[in-house]
Amino acid sequence: QKLKLTTYGGRGMTLEQELNESNQYYLANDIAVIHKKPTPIQIVKVDYPKRSAAVIREAYFRQASTTDYNGIYRGRYVDFDAKETQETTRFPLDNFHKHQIEHMRSCLKQGGICFGLIKFVKLDQLYLLKATDLITYWDHQDTGHKSIPLKVFDDIALPIHYRLNPIIPYLDAVDHII
Amino acid sequence: QKLKLTTYGGRGMTLEQELNESNQYYLANDIAVIHKKPTPIQIVKVDYPKRSAAVIREAYFRQASTTDYNGIYRGRYVDFDAKETQETTRFPLDNFHKHQIEHMRSCLKQGGICFGLIKFVKLDQLYLLKATDLITYWDHQDTGHKSIPLKVFDDIALPIHYRLNPIIPYLDAVDHII
Ligand SMILES: [Mg+2]
Ligand SMILES: [Mg+2]
Repeated sequence: QKLKLTTYGGRGMTLEQELNESNQYYLANDIAVIHKKPTPIQIVKVDYPKRSAAVIREAYFRQASTTDYNGIYRGRYVDFDAKETQETTRFPLDNFHKHQIEHMRSCLKQGGICFGLIKFVKLDQLYLLKATDLITYWDHQDTGHKSIPLKVFDDIALPIHYRLNPIIPYLDAVDHII
Repeated sequence: QKLKLTTYGGRGMTLEQELNESNQYYLANDIAVIHKKPTPIQIVKVDYPKRSAAVIREAYFRQASTTDYNGIYRGRYVDFDAKETQETTRFPLDNFHKHQIEHMRSCLKQGGICFGLIKFVKLDQLYLLKATDLITYWDHQDTGHKSIPLKVFDDIALPIHYRLNPIIPYLDAVDHII
């Protein structure tokens, strides 16, 4: 008999949806103003039908030049990206793109709070990994590993436990790194 | 004979392009990390042709729930929107959407630096108007005016003069409000 995990998350929501709900909670309660940026799209062709809304008829997905989430919390600039992995023992670094890492490097220089929110989907485990730690692993890929072992997360990342409201209380973890 | 205005701006660039270039300058010189958010799009239909990139075949423009620009400068969260008007004596408040004003209100509560960058295109004049002032006018629309007279900009807004690098040195104006 398999042990059934009882969690507040996983009600068929993606990590993005869970974070959007959490951000709405934080916004509605004057705790933080953090939004996901829209997906960048290269628009090629738009139709303007009479008496109705413009329709985009040809467009392509572009790669983002920043992370997906940013905003303000306790007067501080917050910047992060959320990643899901199906792996169960390690987080492959190629989940991040080079320009996302460079963006975090730039934000750190300006004094921003930067991190990755990483979910091991099959384990239903979620961590906040500080950008400084992420970047250390990123910068040692040539000589070292292409992924971060789960054990390292248990050592240096902050676990985030699903809750009711907000579903993902990640700002509690942020409180520990500022 | 007409007086020819010599400006560094107006090389056929839109205000958005000028700001993007300015933000690139600020980023490259480690002065600030500020980006324009992508236009929000509601995607309805995507084709996945074999051996080539996904093509969006039906999509619609959505209204943004925030301002267009945000980022970090001197450790502070910065948030603004840029608006162009063809008017020459006043700035109509309906250039802003209600949710953009609400977003600025929320960011101000968290301690963010919020403003509008407003360009009078025909006058080639650009101003930084603090969000607190913008919101004051916004909140008095019922009883008062639906626009802000140009004269008020000369009194309470900060003029920004086009330059070579960055084209729009708006962070100089930000220095005066922090
Ligand atoms: Mg992402
Ligand atoms: Mg705009």
